Amino acid sequence: MCKKLHIEVEEVDLEWGSGTPHDEFEKILSEDKDHNIKAVLVTHNETSTGVTNDVKATRDLLNNLNHPALLLVDGVSSIGSIKFEMDAWGVDVAVSGSQKGFMLPAGLAISCVSQKALEIAKTSNLPRAYYDYHDMLKINETGYWPYTNPMPLLRGLREALNMMMEEGIDNIYARHKFLAQAVQKASSAWGLKLCAKDPSLYSNTVTAIMVPEGIDSTDVVKTAYNKYNTSFGGGLNKVAGKLFRIGHLGDLNSTMILGAISTAELAMYDVGIKFELGSGVAAAIKHLKA
Amino acid sequence: MCKKLHIEVEEVDLEWGSGTPHDEFEKILSEDKDHNIKAVLVTHNETSTGVTNDVKATRDLLNNLNHPALLLVDGVSSIGSIKFEMDAWGVDVAVSGSQKGFMLPAGLAISCVSQKALEIAKTSNLPRAYYDYHDMLKINETGYWPYTNPMPLLRGLREALNMMMEEGIDNIYARHKFLAQAVQKASSAWGLKLCAKDPSLYSNTVTAIMVPEGIDSTDVVKTAYNKYNTSFGGGLNKVAGKLFRIGHLGDLNSTMILGAISTAELAMYDVGIKFELGSGVAAAIKHLKA
Amino acid sequence: MCKKLHIEVEEVDLEWGSGTPHDEFEKILSEDKDHNIKAVLVTHNETSTGVTNDVKATRDLLNNLNHPALLLVDGVSSIGSIKFEMDAWGVDVAVSGSQKGFMLPAGLAISCVSQKALEIAKTSNLPRAYYDYHDMLKINETGYWPYTNPMPLLRGLREALNMMMEEGIDNIYARHKFLAQAVQKASSAWGLKLCAKDPSLYSNTVTAIMVPEGIDSTDVVKTAYNKYNTSFGGGLNKVAGKLFRIGHLGDLNSTMILGAISTAELAMYDVGIKFELGSGVAAAIKHLKA
Amino acid sequence: MCKKLHIEVEEVDLEWGSGTPHDEFEKILSEDKDHNIKAVLVTHNETSTGVTNDVKATRDLLNNLNHPALLLVDGVSSIGSIKFEMDAWGVDVAVSGSQKGFMLPAGLAISCVSQKALEIAKTSNLPRAYYDYHDMLKINETGYWPYTNPMPLLRGLREALNMMMEEGIDNIYARHKFLAQAVQKASSAWGLKLCAKDPSLYSNTVTAIMVPEGIDSTDVVKTAYNKYNTSFGGGLNKVAGKLFRIGHLGDLNSTMILGAISTAELAMYDVGIKFELGSGVAAAIKHLKA
Repeated sequence: MCKKLHIEVEEVDLEWGSGTPHDEFEKILSEDKDHNIKAVLVTHNETSTGVTNDVKATRDLLNNLNHPALLLVDGVSSIGSIKFEMDAWGVDVAVSGSQKGFMLPAGLAISCVSQKALEIAKTSNLPRAYYDYHDMLKINETGYWPYTNPMPLLRGLREALNMMMEEGIDNIYARHKFLAQAVQKASSAWGLKLCAKDPSLYSNTVTAIMVPEGIDSTDVVKTAYNKYNTSFGGGLNKVAGKLFRIGHLGDLNSTMILGAISTAELAMYDVGIKFELGSGVAAAIKHLKA
Repeated sequence: MCKKLHIEVEEVDLEWGSGTPHDEFEKILSEDKDHNIKAVLVTHNETSTGVTNDVKATRDLLNNLNHPALLLVDGVSSIGSIKFEMDAWGVDVAVSGSQKGFMLPAGLAISCVSQKALEIAKTSNLPRAYYDYHDMLKINETGYWPYTNPMPLLRGLREALNMMMEEGIDNIYARHKFLAQAVQKASSAWGLKLCAKDPSLYSNTVTAIMVPEGIDSTDVVKTAYNKYNTSFGGGLNKVAGKLFRIGHLGDLNSTMILGAISTAELAMYDVGIKFELGSGVAAAIKHLKA
Repeated sequence: MCKKLHIEVEEVDLEWGSGTPHDEFEKILSEDKDHNIKAVLVTHNETSTGVTNDVKATRDLLNNLNHPALLLVDGVSSIGSIKFEMDAWGVDVAVSGSQKGFMLPAGLAISCVSQKALEIAKTSNLPRAYYDYHDMLKINETGYWPYTNPMPLLRGLREALNMMMEEGIDNIYARHKFLAQAVQKASSAWGLKLCAKDPSLYSNTVTAIMVPEGIDSTDVVKTAYNKYNTSFGGGLNKVAGKLFRIGHLGDLNSTMILGAISTAELAMYDVGIKFELGSGVAAAIKHLKA
Repeated sequence: MCKKLHIEVEEVDLEWGSGTPHDEFEKILSEDKDHNIKAVLVTHNETSTGVTNDVKATRDLLNNLNHPALLLVDGVSSIGSIKFEMDAWGVDVAVSGSQKGFMLPAGLAISCVSQKALEIAKTSNLPRAYYDYHDMLKINETGYWPYTNPMPLLRGLREALNMMMEEGIDNIYARHKFLAQAVQKASSAWGLKLCAKDPSLYSNTVTAIMVPEGIDSTDVVKTAYNKYNTSFGGGLNKVAGKLFRIGHLGDLNSTMILGAISTAELAMYDVGIKFELGSGVAAAIKHLKA
């Protein structure tokens, strides 16, 4: 048994906090006359910067250029929380996880695939470490599963989906937006900028807040965790030490987000960030009372 | 089988929000020259008014009068959260539950009894509906239990006690006091009085907040529950409609109490109480940052 | 406040393993011309002897004598597992628990009461330690509960009832009977008698098996528990040491009952009871294959 | 970014039910003068046939030939249940899962790696889909984890390991062997052969039982599941329809295995296999009483 594999991956580098670089994508794709590019991958919601991208715009770009590349979407921190339209947006492969909008522990990768991508997968010779759509489809017909499956998570997913159906997906999207705005209002009241470059990019599931010069955002995260038993995210990679992140997705309500914002105030105060104590949560309450 | 039963119970009536009426107790007990009064019952922490009583003062009164009555204490919402000293205070029977300071679902009555009370129970002819200390003591010697017991709660209690030992009982008392003060500061900032008549009576586990004339406190409770998914207590009996209660005991930290205070603001605003939005939670944050 | 209480309870003593003594009941009730007897209490299924009584026969007796006494039924180990007809049998008060046929941990008392008994309860001056039907009825109208309730058990009960509805109550009764017969066949194969005096009394939820002279049944129970991790019941009171009990109710199927019977063989062998190893479980399998 | 990948995998084909073909391994490895073979993979316990292989013999073979190939072991259904000695046997990479001997739901891959394999992994250019030992080692030093981890399973694993330490690993091995022998004795009593070709290969964690000609073993599995609520394994691939498998590992005791054996009798009887009802479980009880 012998396999040869040749993959080239082209990463389009961006300033952190920016959205999908549609112009650069257009340039690259329009120059690809031979259609060597087989797939374009975009992240719907970038967890590390709190940026939500316009996936449909990438599909429109491909369509306008008549480019056949598949559209692959990382929807880990968006699907189930931020509006996502697999079919209407012409997404070919979307991937999410159990531990974000689906409100479960980590452990399930959730994926959806278009007919077009399924067809292409049939003839692809890329090596697969574990998962193959066609293994799954074949055995699913018999009511089975190709490998031992994590039943507690699957049962949890069924209940999570029931809860989501009960609330209504549009209500869920609206709730995430409303609660995200509370965090944005609080950040403004504190006089702090977000990592996301433009309000049109603000994420409804995570807000990355830039700390002032001279402050290490890691200290905010550590203080919140160790002193207040609350988990915020830190800055990763290029923004390490420069921002902290408040995640606001899944089974979340006003009481929880107000507790989180208040705790952010305590942790920021403790590490020496200057702002008026109570200003952020007051701004959030004024928004949420609406 | 024939039993005759004669019990007289004398209730000392009080204005709601007051503490144990030591003067009236003294009068009644000193007039009881024949020691017909067999037991004095006080509530350590009155859940419906947010009042904590001085149990030791009642014991001192009995001792000063050389009165042999047993001292019975309802410690449902205090034991495990507010300093309680069975032996040092000369308590004869204390009763608590699993669902307050012990952080479990309702279902267990937890009781402690002095040697003196155990002796008296041997000759008492009061009818017992279910529980008898001596049935329990007798069978416990064999490692058994007289009736079928709720194992999940007993196992939960073991873990709860482990958690409490790990934190340290004095640390738990201090935490409850610190978080209670945050609620008291918020109430002051809102310009609202507590039901408890005097700061010396303020409870560390529950705060009963009087709403202004013209407002029905039941609406605060309903709004918090239905709109914000948060349970506050209502006013019971004589204070129905006049107060709402924030419970703050057990597995509780700053983040949770700030969420609760913020939600109280939202619910109070919704029902028309006038106050500066954000003022209460700001006062709480300023206290908690200390 | 002063209450006088006068209760007389007449216990009709029986040989253990016998059923309701209808003749003696008839004699006592027919002599009670003044209707001083206010209630007759029968145990539907006697857990300690494995005897199921004919409740309807007691009701018929009362009706035939035109005796107005209430019919109270202890249905702890029968209701939900053995046919029980509250209305058709004219039962006035039935009591059960969460930990038997309802497949939950101990912690709930489940009770049903007739209109007749409710009316009588209104004027009764019997002291109540905790529970009063009228407290419950009054508050239930408002959607509340008079005291703090054990939510996990109530949610568990809802699911247990869903499971029972899904299986069908008649199917549940038939399953209990079928599995009980497997234990009875095994006992016969071992050459051991049951405590229940007559096959018409055999319980579908528990079988009490008499051990031979010279054997202490407590040793069977201890061996099963300590060596095989299986809980059997021991003999209580008058039959202490003389029998062991296999409980077979609730969420039970053939595999479990065969495991239990097989384990009984191991434990009986270990303590020196003489029988052909494998004979009981073989008899059970032959029954269950039907 | 461009990667070239060239892998050749040589599978040594065997009759199902056989153990590791040491002779053929010796031939292949001794002919591999240039050491092109980088690793030898053996399955410690073959779940589909109930065969346990002698892993140490493979290591001895490599050592005797001075062959530097790594020894990789699939220990999914053996580690934690059947004696496995990572260091003493010179295993370089062992893989197991959470859902077998570790008594948890599926969801964790558990792996152990030798220093030699770690060194080689540093320079390997094999593509990795998700997991890399060096990513893990690097981040573990900081107390973190490179990706979001399934906390419930990790906490469960901690408790599972506590339980295993408490029982003692040698006691666990002995228990699995003792219970496996009960299944083997039952199979003999039924007059049915095992898939494993020789008693020296019999697995302590799963027994694959050949059904007589003319019987479809799938029917045994379906009957056990649908009628008796018990899951047996079916025959896979080349032995589809020819055998059914009783898994016996993890949190298992005599009562459970006797229930399983008895249920196998019921299911086998139902599908028309001829044997003396009760003979298998009787043989098992006679073994287990020892």
